[in-house]
Amino acid sequence: MGGLTVVRELISQLPNESIIYFGDTARVPYGPKSPDTVLRYSREITQHLIGEGVKALVIACNTATAHALPALRREFKLPIIGVIEPGSRAAAQATRTGRVGVIGTAGTIKSRAYEKEIHKIRPDAEIAVQACALFVPLVEEGWLDTEPTRAIARNYLAPIVAAEVDTLVLGCTHYPLMKTVIGNVVGREVRLIDSAHETAKETGEVLRARGIDNATPDGARYRFIASDAQDTFLAMGQRFLGTAIDRVEALTLG
Amino acid sequence: MGGLTVVRELISQLPNESIIYFGDTARVPYGPKSPDTVLRYSREITQHLIGEGVKALVIACNTATAHALPALRREFKLPIIGVIEPGSRAAAQATRTGRVGVIGTAGTIKSRAYEKEIHKIRPDAEIAVQACALFVPLVEEGWLDTEPTRAIARNYLAPIVAAEVDTLVLGCTHYPLMKTVIGNVVGREVRLIDSAHETAKETGEVLRARGIDNATPDGARYRFIASDAQDTFLAMGQRFLGTAIDRVEALTLG
Repeated sequence: MGGLTVVRELISQLPNESIIYFGDTARVPYGPKSPDTVLRYSREITQHLIGEGVKALVIACNTATAHALPALRREFKLPIIGVIEPGSRAAAQATRTGRVGVIGTAGTIKSRAYEKEIHKIRPDAEIAVQACALFVPLVEEGWLDTEPTRAIARNYLAPIVAAEVDTLVLGCTHYPLMKTVIGNVVGREVRLIDSAHETAKETGEVLRARGIDNATPDGARYRFIASDAQDTFLAMGQRFLGTAIDRVEALTLG
Repeated sequence: MGGLTVVRELISQLPNESIIYFGDTARVPYGPKSPDTVLRYSREITQHLIGEGVKALVIACNTATAHALPALRREFKLPIIGVIEPGSRAAAQATRTGRVGVIGTAGTIKSRAYEKEIHKIRPDAEIAVQACALFVPLVEEGWLDTEPTRAIARNYLAPIVAAEVDTLVLGCTHYPLMKTVIGNVVGREVRLIDSAHETAKETGEVLRARGIDNATPDGARYRFIASDAQDTFLAMGQRFLGTAIDRVEALTLG
């Protein structure tokens, strides 16, 4: 589901590009799964999408980017864009004090992928991290801005607030939907980095740099595939994307 | 994870029986998945456990019981005990007013499996149902008795309270860990049915009826297998079961 925040940004920033989206609804959430399992699932999905003829691949999931991006880049030739490098770059550029916060799923935080990327650009950055495991189910249940959500957010984000960061990376594709609550807890003066937005920007740059962007307007088509519960996916998808999604195809993997 | 509440009851009620437990940590949660997918996963696990030589099978998950029990009973010969029949029977016997509440995952509630079972015994029962999707992640994050948990419980359980039930089935194996919060919201006068407890009782009855129970003490051995993240499983398992679990084997399915 969360990957649809990236799709929304891709549609808005790259309106000429067609998109085939695969949502692994049979096996989500990836957050608590081990690196090996996430890599295995990501490889299967990549193979399938390459079979569909895609010219570039966006891994619209922080956990999958953290665990699978380096291996997939070694194994496959097409350009692969993850959600961690663009968000890290934006954070490293945005921070003035060098104190950056990163929140994400247990898997993303444990991988230390954001810390590694941010330190490549700003080796002196002090990074405070926090896994926020309940945010994904809260978003999926639609508890976006309620008192329990605010209380849970205050609890998770207390160490981030204590670290006095001036920039906070929303290191999970679900979190842009909780921007209001997160922003209120950490304070208006903290800059929130939306990795979905940064990833779409980077995707445009990669396509143009390789000369494989599509300059012809009006030809963009969108296909959505889910490995389970296509009805639920369609209903949630329409909340995220409106009319860009009108049906969901089924595909069984694994 | 939730199935361990059933294991705890099995160990306590049937101390002579050995247990092989398979936790499908690579593919949980089953709650939001479609019936076909849950059946496919349950069939794979059953085949594996039969290969390990088990004499009876307990499906220690409400969603898997709802979607897979009838098919598995047709396909396999060993006795198969689910968690829904025992809880339904206990509820039908406990209620005085005939007004019964059932809470569970989205999949269990949608299947109407509890309603069907309770109506077999008490056709006049009025049943109020409610899916409580956030309870599983709250339990797994350890938010058992906090103010946000209480607020979320009050919200989910409002229709159950309004229906003035005198009996409430905890139709998910995670929920016994939230008994205190749930009991406080619905009121002390409402009888809570713990399906883990009822399932262990039924398992003992089935084994004795078939003459396959083990009367020899001190021979019970416990094995735990998980399809992913064995370390996390071990840590959580020790919180549930203490020393009965000291290692977790890995097995990849699917």
